[in-house]
Amino acid sequence: MAGWQEALERQARTRAKAGLTRILRPRPAGDTVVDLAGNDYLGLAVHPGVIAASVRALQEYGLGATGSRLVRGSTRAHEALETELAGWLGAEQALVYSSGYLANLGAVRALAGPQTLLVSDRYNHASLIDGCKSSGAEVVVAPHADPAALAAILDAHPGRPAVFVTESVFSVDGDLAPLAELHAVTSSRDALLLVDDAHAVGVLGTEGAGGVAAAGLAGKPDVIVTATLSKSLGGAGGVVAGPAALIRHLVDTGRTFIYDTAPPPAVVAGVHAALRLARAADDRRAVLAARGALTARRLGAAGFEVSRPAAGVLSVPAPGPEAAVTWAADCADRDIAVGCFRPPSTPDGSSRLRLTLNAGVAAADFARALDVIVECAP
Amino acid sequence: MAGWQEALERQARTRAKAGLTRILRPRPAGDTVVDLAGNDYLGLAVHPGVIAASVRALQEYGLGATGSRLVRGSTRAHEALETELAGWLGAEQALVYSSGYLANLGAVRALAGPQTLLVSDRYNHASLIDGCKSSGAEVVVAPHADPAALAAILDAHPGRPAVFVTESVFSVDGDLAPLAELHAVTSSRDALLLVDDAHAVGVLGTEGAGGVAAAGLAGKPDVIVTATLSKSLGGAGGVVAGPAALIRHLVDTGRTFIYDTAPPPAVVAGVHAALRLARAADDRRAVLAARGALTARRLGAAGFEVSRPAAGVLSVPAPGPEAAVTWAADCADRDIAVGCFRPPSTPDGSSRLRLTLNAGVAAADFARALDVIVECAP
Ligand SMILES: Cc1ncc(COP(=O)(O)O)c(C=O)c1O
Ligand SMILES: Cc1ncc(COP(=O)(O)O)c(C=O)c1O
Repeated sequence: MAGWQEALERQARTRAKAGLTRILRPRPAGDTVVDLAGNDYLGLAVHPGVIAASVRALQEYGLGATGSRLVRGSTRAHEALETELAGWLGAEQALVYSSGYLANLGAVRALAGPQTLLVSDRYNHASLIDGCKSSGAEVVVAPHADPAALAAILDAHPGRPAVFVTESVFSVDGDLAPLAELHAVTSSRDALLLVDDAHAVGVLGTEGAGGVAAAGLAGKPDVIVTATLSKSLGGAGGVVAGPAALIRHLVDTGRTFIYDTAPPPAVVAGVHAALRLARAADDRRAVLAARGALTARRLGAAGFEVSRPAAGVLSVPAPGPEAAVTWAADCADRDIAVGCFRPPSTPDGSSRLRLTLNAGVAAADFARALDVIVECAP
Repeated sequence: MAGWQEALERQARTRAKAGLTRILRPRPAGDTVVDLAGNDYLGLAVHPGVIAASVRALQEYGLGATGSRLVRGSTRAHEALETELAGWLGAEQALVYSSGYLANLGAVRALAGPQTLLVSDRYNHASLIDGCKSSGAEVVVAPHADPAALAAILDAHPGRPAVFVTESVFSVDGDLAPLAELHAVTSSRDALLLVDDAHAVGVLGTEGAGGVAAAGLAGKPDVIVTATLSKSLGGAGGVVAGPAALIRHLVDTGRTFIYDTAPPPAVVAGVHAALRLARAADDRRAVLAARGALTARRLGAAGFEVSRPAAGVLSVPAPGPEAAVTWAADCADRDIAVGCFRPPSTPDGSSRLRLTLNAGVAAADFARALDVIVECAP
């Protein structure tokens, strides 16, 4: 075996000793597992209306978009989804990407000129961190969800164009950033606010328009929103929404937009159907909120440190990475899927179960899932 | 309008003056345009077997994968595709990504340790360039497709782990890198060879196994292959194929793998059906080769500097960016779609039409398309 492979094997053994090996566990079609691990918050990935729209587009367009958006990949399906996303999010325009990851890379880079100061919440998602790093701009990592700390950082760099980059609902702990306060800080200092609303669109705000909308910031010209189409919208892809000047800039110059194949029309059409359903899904949002409260009560009563989630994500501390793996595996053995988060996927280096609530799960299954989680606790 | 938007508008005006504005032109379902712009080389995106497989998976799994591969997104469909991709490409293992872009970012970063020297062909795709830049490793840009220059660069950095990063069939000009010679250079110096086979899989090699296979390099332990599933495989997504130690490293540590939602099972299943068809599609590959020869003859006879393409891509020089846009628009007016490539999308700063051949286009339509391209020339 060659030297580089040996080096990789050595690192793999080190990770294994630390309990950090990751294993892919493919699920079969139609498994009966109760899902508290996926991000299909509203249960729309399996909605008949979503599947029907996707099938129709497959038959009309074929599978792949066959090219990048600017060459051959733009279809009426992409255009229609972008128009509705912009309306929903209250933005001048919206641009669809093949993933939330590439949308974040594109958005951060577009806003970062050579003089720009990027301020990034300490718990931000990997795609935001990568966007900051690869922009070449100066990056300051800010304490988590802390408007006063943000103000101090911006005030220490006067006269520089600046962008604060944050999630709304954080992807591991599920807490909600104080967006209105953060915006008060950025706007009073002529800085921009970039919010990754991945875990809040569909869940928070009127018509599920997201955390930015719920904070009263939709359509503000100094707020840019990104999101993935793969969570409450049940599909795949990403979006950047904001002023028309930004979207034009992304179309003309954004590398992760220009040089990437467009998402398949069938995925786009399915997401569009899900979006229409999500806007009207106050019933599903009510179920989600009730389940969040129930989960916090049930796990709190069993002695776990769990707070009521702001949206559909919450996390339950585990004693260590191996305990977390065993806990999740024991739940899986009893047909309950929960997320298991270990370093480097946890912001603070600790391990935990991550529960993501799903309004599509049957009520009895959901109650049983909570029991199983408690019974399997280390 | 705020200062940052004004700055973006100013840049947009500068681009407009230079003829570099990009406009999205959504196509309707079932348009009758003859496609010499997309990358559906074998015409499989619209193959009934591909669509049927995709519809079946939609009905079995729903639309989205609902999570990252390690959390909830791995399905039997992903596993089956990865097994067949590895067999096809002659690699120990293969790992599927949601796009070729993210696959390239992941592969380059995984191979670049802090001491590594990355050598990158001057004409490489944006995703490879971004991967090199964001790796933090030292990057040397090498002259295009030049084994002697590569040898000189490696020899100037002795004793360093090194990786040479190249495409096989280059995405704009369609020329084929001299892979066997490049590999002779890398292997004799203990360097790795990373080949983006995006435009060659399905097209070159036995069973269409790609440019790496055609060069006799499949399965070499010092060769890593990436590709997109969005071109000859008619779908979307990306793949990294190589030694098991590398794939394990990507699963355990690769940010663009771990922190990205899995591609939809329906896309994966459709691509898998396309892959089975592609392996058996010597007839379609023969059509493609014949069309390459015909295009070079027809355009050469009309006075254009066009050489016979190595695979399905070729480019036709245009006098400038505006002339290229007009030329492509005139073709579009006559229902012929051709690619129009201008800076910064062209490696050498010149503008040209890019033609991508498609074995699924009817022969008469294809002949007419060549006539129209000649007639519309500036
Ligand atoms: C907060 C956040 N941003 C971005 C992403 C990336 O989106 P995608 O999976 O569509 O690439 C995710 C997760 O997948 C996420 O949780
Ligand atoms: C050579 C090459 N590599 C990578 C990619 C990116 O693949 P994807 O479109 O799947 O992101 C492309 C084009 O799309 C390409 O032409």
